Amino acid sequence: MDYMIWLNGEYIPRGEAKISMLDRGFRLGDVVFDTSRTFDGKVFRLRDHLDRLYRSLQFVRIDPGMTIDEMEQTTLQVVARNEAQRSKDGDDYMITQIVTRGEGGSRGDAVARANVSIWIDPMGFERYAPLYETGAHVVITKTRSYSSDQLDPKVKHYSRLNFVMADLEAADVDPDAFPLLLDADGNITESIGANFMVVSNGVLKTPVDRSTLQGVSRMTLMELAEQLGIPTEEADLQPYDVYTADEAFLCSTPYCLLPVGRVDNRQIGSEVPGPIAKQLLAAWSEKVGLEIVDQMATRARA
Amino acid sequence: MDYMIWLNGEYIPRGEAKISMLDRGFRLGDVVFDTSRTFDGKVFRLRDHLDRLYRSLQFVRIDPGMTIDEMEQTTLQVVARNEAQRSKDGDDYMITQIVTRGEGGSRGDAVARANVSIWIDPMGFERYAPLYETGAHVVITKTRSYSSDQLDPKVKHYSRLNFVMADLEAADVDPDAFPLLLDADGNITESIGANFMVVSNGVLKTPVDRSTLQGVSRMTLMELAEQLGIPTEEADLQPYDVYTADEAFLCSTPYCLLPVGRVDNRQIGSEVPGPIAKQLLAAWSEKVGLEIVDQMATRARA
Amino acid sequence: MDYMIWLNGEYIPRGEAKISMLDRGFRLGDVVFDTSRTFDGKVFRLRDHLDRLYRSLQFVRIDPGMTIDEMEQTTLQVVARNEAQRSKDGDDYMITQIVTRGEGGSRGDAVARANVSIWIDPMGFERYAPLYETGAHVVITKTRSYSSDQLDPKVKHYSRLNFVMADLEAADVDPDAFPLLLDADGNITESIGANFMVVSNGVLKTPVDRSTLQGVSRMTLMELAEQLGIPTEEADLQPYDVYTADEAFLCSTPYCLLPVGRVDNRQIGSEVPGPIAKQLLAAWSEKVGLEIVDQMATRARA
Amino acid sequence: MDYMIWLNGEYIPRGEAKISMLDRGFRLGDVVFDTSRTFDGKVFRLRDHLDRLYRSLQFVRIDPGMTIDEMEQTTLQVVARNEAQRSKDGDDYMITQIVTRGEGGSRGDAVARANVSIWIDPMGFERYAPLYETGAHVVITKTRSYSSDQLDPKVKHYSRLNFVMADLEAADVDPDAFPLLLDADGNITESIGANFMVVSNGVLKTPVDRSTLQGVSRMTLMELAEQLGIPTEEADLQPYDVYTADEAFLCSTPYCLLPVGRVDNRQIGSEVPGPIAKQLLAAWSEKVGLEIVDQMATRARA
Amino acid sequence: MDYMIWLNGEYIPRGEAKISMLDRGFRLGDVVFDTSRTFDGKVFRLRDHLDRLYRSLQFVRIDPGMTIDEMEQTTLQVVARNEAQRSKDGDDYMITQIVTRGEGGSRGDAVARANVSIWIDPMGFERYAPLYETGAHVVITKTRSYSSDQLDPKVKHYSRLNFVMADLEAADVDPDAFPLLLDADGNITESIGANFMVVSNGVLKTPVDRSTLQGVSRMTLMELAEQLGIPTEEADLQPYDVYTADEAFLCSTPYCLLPVGRVDNRQIGSEVPGPIAKQLLAAWSEKVGLEIVDQMATRARA
Amino acid sequence: MDYMIWLNGEYIPRGEAKISMLDRGFRLGDVVFDTSRTFDGKVFRLRDHLDRLYRSLQFVRIDPGMTIDEMEQTTLQVVARNEAQRSKDGDDYMITQIVTRGEGGSRGDAVARANVSIWIDPMGFERYAPLYETGAHVVITKTRSYSSDQLDPKVKHYSRLNFVMADLEAADVDPDAFPLLLDADGNITESIGANFMVVSNGVLKTPVDRSTLQGVSRMTLMELAEQLGIPTEEADLQPYDVYTADEAFLCSTPYCLLPVGRVDNRQIGSEVPGPIAKQLLAAWSEKVGLEIVDQMATRARA
Repeated sequence: MDYMIWLNGEYIPRGEAKISMLDRGFRLGDVVFDTSRTFDGKVFRLRDHLDRLYRSLQFVRIDPGMTIDEMEQTTLQVVARNEAQRSKDGDDYMITQIVTRGEGGSRGDAVARANVSIWIDPMGFERYAPLYETGAHVVITKTRSYSSDQLDPKVKHYSRLNFVMADLEAADVDPDAFPLLLDADGNITESIGANFMVVSNGVLKTPVDRSTLQGVSRMTLMELAEQLGIPTEEADLQPYDVYTADEAFLCSTPYCLLPVGRVDNRQIGSEVPGPIAKQLLAAWSEKVGLEIVDQMATRARA
Repeated sequence: MDYMIWLNGEYIPRGEAKISMLDRGFRLGDVVFDTSRTFDGKVFRLRDHLDRLYRSLQFVRIDPGMTIDEMEQTTLQVVARNEAQRSKDGDDYMITQIVTRGEGGSRGDAVARANVSIWIDPMGFERYAPLYETGAHVVITKTRSYSSDQLDPKVKHYSRLNFVMADLEAADVDPDAFPLLLDADGNITESIGANFMVVSNGVLKTPVDRSTLQGVSRMTLMELAEQLGIPTEEADLQPYDVYTADEAFLCSTPYCLLPVGRVDNRQIGSEVPGPIAKQLLAAWSEKVGLEIVDQMATRARA
Repeated sequence: MDYMIWLNGEYIPRGEAKISMLDRGFRLGDVVFDTSRTFDGKVFRLRDHLDRLYRSLQFVRIDPGMTIDEMEQTTLQVVARNEAQRSKDGDDYMITQIVTRGEGGSRGDAVARANVSIWIDPMGFERYAPLYETGAHVVITKTRSYSSDQLDPKVKHYSRLNFVMADLEAADVDPDAFPLLLDADGNITESIGANFMVVSNGVLKTPVDRSTLQGVSRMTLMELAEQLGIPTEEADLQPYDVYTADEAFLCSTPYCLLPVGRVDNRQIGSEVPGPIAKQLLAAWSEKVGLEIVDQMATRARA
Repeated sequence: MDYMIWLNGEYIPRGEAKISMLDRGFRLGDVVFDTSRTFDGKVFRLRDHLDRLYRSLQFVRIDPGMTIDEMEQTTLQVVARNEAQRSKDGDDYMITQIVTRGEGGSRGDAVARANVSIWIDPMGFERYAPLYETGAHVVITKTRSYSSDQLDPKVKHYSRLNFVMADLEAADVDPDAFPLLLDADGNITESIGANFMVVSNGVLKTPVDRSTLQGVSRMTLMELAEQLGIPTEEADLQPYDVYTADEAFLCSTPYCLLPVGRVDNRQIGSEVPGPIAKQLLAAWSEKVGLEIVDQMATRARA
Repeated sequence: MDYMIWLNGEYIPRGEAKISMLDRGFRLGDVVFDTSRTFDGKVFRLRDHLDRLYRSLQFVRIDPGMTIDEMEQTTLQVVARNEAQRSKDGDDYMITQIVTRGEGGSRGDAVARANVSIWIDPMGFERYAPLYETGAHVVITKTRSYSSDQLDPKVKHYSRLNFVMADLEAADVDPDAFPLLLDADGNITESIGANFMVVSNGVLKTPVDRSTLQGVSRMTLMELAEQLGIPTEEADLQPYDVYTADEAFLCSTPYCLLPVGRVDNRQIGSEVPGPIAKQLLAAWSEKVGLEIVDQMATRARA
Repeated sequence: MDYMIWLNGEYIPRGEAKISMLDRGFRLGDVVFDTSRTFDGKVFRLRDHLDRLYRSLQFVRIDPGMTIDEMEQTTLQVVARNEAQRSKDGDDYMITQIVTRGEGGSRGDAVARANVSIWIDPMGFERYAPLYETGAHVVITKTRSYSSDQLDPKVKHYSRLNFVMADLEAADVDPDAFPLLLDADGNITESIGANFMVVSNGVLKTPVDRSTLQGVSRMTLMELAEQLGIPTEEADLQPYDVYTADEAFLCSTPYCLLPVGRVDNRQIGSEVPGPIAKQLLAAWSEKVGLEIVDQMATRARA
């Protein structure tokens, strides 16, 4: 049975939710969103995600017709509405707010009225779980991230055909590979919906946010590292820094931290996950009261 | 009454056509399209538009599940299906093929099946008709076009949140203005769904296609100019070339050629439309057997 | 009655000071300068301003024919010479050293002899005073700052026709707006003769000096912030960081700190000035023994 | 005795013409100009120069308060006024229109009133004359030309501190060298107030005008080449194209065509001037009824 | 038995030719070269290749100690010296001049004396021959070509570690693939030692030489196309132009023209070689009196 | 008598060591290396140098056929083998590991087998010793460093024809000058085989490693500075920062720290070496038990 999603005030089975093909979100990519996840049914850092959603809205000048508090309350209602089914399965899920500008124009009288929906999506643990043993294969693609004078990567939006191209290019090298994009100057940015980190000489490094999403998982890992006494750094990184790193990992809402085993067919580090990755995963698991990797393995087999 | 659109083999009233919010076209901008128009009910240069659509598909590696011949036949059927209503009103319209990659993934077994639709959309003559007397106001925006190593502007797609931003920026200067975007190097590219042309010392100039759509209206105007003995040139143009032009115009499927009267609050040329624009509009009108500007004025009042 | 300015050793009424139209400063933009201000008649951080002037001179290889100590003494003499008039009005003013390479060539025998003048200019409080209630409107322009391989923005010079263009572009959006320029990569740089700062999550951030003047007001605010325990950061900032900031302000010699209320028609923060701005203005006022905003209001009405 | 220049309607001896140091032309580089020359007292292509001046004015939005026809008439009056002295010496000179925005602001009531002057300047034949035997030494500098999104090089203005820097860099290599600047992408642009041309395999090539002034001498040479059956090309050129050229030359109003003998200490071609240069100089001399190189040699000795 | 190569005046069996590991050619990449080939023992366009070699020498300021005429004569002697063996096998080969700056410094007394050698190398037909049936697979790499302000691609040199990286990246996608590099702006440049061409709508297009070698095969194909009445164009091309081309091919000295069947896993055109490629191969074969593809097939089996 | 070098397991007199001209290291620049030096016969930070060598190997995917431990042992054997001669002269030397990919291809069966050699090279003290009194003259060149998407400057390789060009350009200004290169954005990078540092207001600053080698001397100086309580900073630096610095120096393995007296004909600081340079040289000398500058002076006279 399907989860119920919330669409402009109505609850609808997830598989039946549709949008008008005249909506600007579809016709112009005029849409922003944000995605959090649950741990044992509790939404993790929801307010941080909503703060970022409202920053995206401020950037694109869409008025969602709801305050951030209302958005938070509604999100929690959607969670409550689906809790029975979730707890029956012992599952967790992604929860996503999507706001399009709606049908109509962007100016004057004809201005569109925002189309707001709140989604529950599966985690996709099947893809990730095996990678905690082998490590993910990452491929740096020729397709680049947008620059901030085109469309700032800190905005979370769906105009992502360049991500799709990068994904296909990574698959040309290895059908299981994850793409990693560079910015216009050749610096590492991010993967699709995931930030990227390396460990070199004991320092945890991640790209500056000039060309990446301000990831909540990224922020969580940086905070955990500081609590663990691991030095951290935001810096411009190049492929060299990735190829020669001691450890590398992706970080994203569904899996928190995903260890990388190879980049462009070069082996990274000597074990998967590496020692820092293990520490971070343990700390995060403790924080949320749930063994992150175990859950992934268990649910992937379910 | 609504026109009927074609969606994966079914006819549906235009206002009721919806797409799953799980479709990759909505969630990832994984969608391409193309748009032609009718003149007195006959589709103009349909095959040129479909050639470009199939170039877009080749670029993004979506298999539409239809040959270009089938797409052409189906498009003409949609036209036939709506002809009664169109001719009753004496109207013309835009006709658009939209192909999303569908629901699912981009790799292996889980690969999505394309979602194909063929649309009839109104022309929007109301906005354009008055501008044949005053000239459009064009504003060069700070938001830039994507570069080809991010997402080639020759592909016709919907990942256009940067166009939306540019549109809002133009409106900040003048609520009626049209945006004109620069490429990463500061050369003129295009407006939203419209190419741009200037006339200087009797030469018709338009940006090279490194950073613009290969517009069919643009191609038509270049051909007409050559037939009229007007020299033409594809070149890198900068704002200087636009501010100091003798004439400037937008060209796009719904209006063919739209004269520009001001750019960034500088007056362009001394009459609207300028002499070359008039020649081109006359030649195009003759080619399609219909007074383009008159129809726009008539329909705008309707 | 006019203030007296100093021109190559002579005192001249300000409105009568002229320069040969053959001077390289006029004909080639071959001129650097620096500007400080008085607080209750005392010049603020004069030596820091003169250090920067002599860095500009070192960069452009103009020999002013005076040591930095002589320039300091002469500046203070100009101040003394005008003190009677200033104190009569209870006013303050800007004091500017201008050094052109003079008439002649840049090489060999024909080398020009520097033309040095020291100026007293009014503050322009009338423009700024009302903005402490409404906040300034800032518009990010399409015209960009020069890059360091063209003309380093850390040099303080008069080759500023690009600033004039940016100013006109800002006025196209709002006749009262201040322009804010981006560098070649799309990072925030500066306004005309003013640095730019934002506050986000309690951190005071300002662009690195790769593309901005090393402002003395900027330096003063960073020092005051550190004394107040406000964390500070020099970083690459993009328009996103400005649109989503909690506070934003311009800083420049005449007004110290000018609160920003809107950027590109997006409201910034919820009050003007914001809480950090207020703290900084109070600390600066205390430092100079004069209520900065009050003086501005009083003098603007005078 | 000095030539008389025209300044806002008055005639003044050239050496005495001054401008207020408060003028925006001095304080902000808010000024454009254009320069033509006489051949035996007759101004060469004055209207082409004034067309370019009015394009500069249109770009920077300065209203000179005179129509182009009035500017042409006034220029010719200045010529007439100085003809007695010129013909006495058998000399020729440069004639320059300078338009600053004046004193005041760029917006609203306070808007400045343009400051217009028309100048007669000596040619500087002494520097050029010997180079028709040895060839000029050109040095490609590290200082670059501005990009069009900063300040379009097609506008003729005085914000040229980067030219001054480039001039000093060239002199570091050779006190007699002329600088040649690259654009942001490393393509050849122009020297100070001079375009640049090469001949390779019989083809006359010059940079496109994306990063150079639209020189009237450049235009004249291209037209003469076409009349002489020499193929011409506007193209992106790199230092390689210059180092390996058969001939190279500068072109500018005072000297028309100046042969280059060395670039970055590499010898160019095998004779100075090269065969194409000689043809062009001869054709130009015939056109103006005066041996260009002979006059230069004669006047340089005078 | 080995061919004999020429090394600073001596003949040595090819496999035994060595260079001091202190030579600047090895230690600094301070070396240029050029490569031509024989058709039935006759060197093709040797003078064009040597002209390019001497342009490379002019660029890098190496004095080879031989005039171009001496280099030509010596090359022909090497050919004569090896003719017996070549004609015995009915083979053809590559002939390469290599000039290093030698041992020592680049300045003053210590300046090195050039090290000159002339090489005979096998064609490598085995790799190419099968591709006339299947078409080559080309992969556009993330590693880019150098820009002209770093090291002009028109110079033929051995500082090619970036080519090696690109080659490995192409092999990551397909062990048999050829790399194709982009310039800093994302335009198509060249493969390793090979230019690249596409045919679109009957027009033969190849990148401008801003970022590519001025290939002699490229020049030959352009000339043949003109003789055959096929329109040609040098232009900035992007991956879109390659993916959507009707035909594509590599061109290089050993194989003249090599048809491309796939680019980035997209099929190009509908037959291999395409119709224009066939015409060009036939014309070239006629020109050199030898069936190019047949020879390749025959020799590959030998 | 010559030192003995190690070449693929054999000892050979340095002057006689040769490499096949078919080796990829010569023909394609397919080679990496690293260089350390001795102090009184003991290799300084050998493991840090080998770590960097193995990072280079990882980047370019060459398998040297030796572990890092084996490389370390072999290097120390080469040192031992040459110790008698070194100590006889009281000299020190550079020791360099060079790894080429060998002869053959980069793919499949034909893959090349690495060519490994370990070299002893003289220090070149004669050039450096006098500069501790006058200071080196540094010239910023127009030739730029490669970008990381072309060939990462953190890899230590021999594809350095751009360094050779920069060296010649510096010599055009002053035959004794050292070149200093900029990156594609105009930031300071490095000299040939040497990092660059400035001191401003007591802070030791060096470019970030985005565009420079991760120098071991650079790392040593940064560590020494921290021990001495001198604040340090890695930052983007522009020529302005160099021209206006209080001190500047080159750092490289043979000389550790070389004071700079002039940059682009501008004097830097007021004494050579400056106070911070002296402190750092003293600390380093103490660390290695040898007066660095004295040894240089003594050996230069030998």
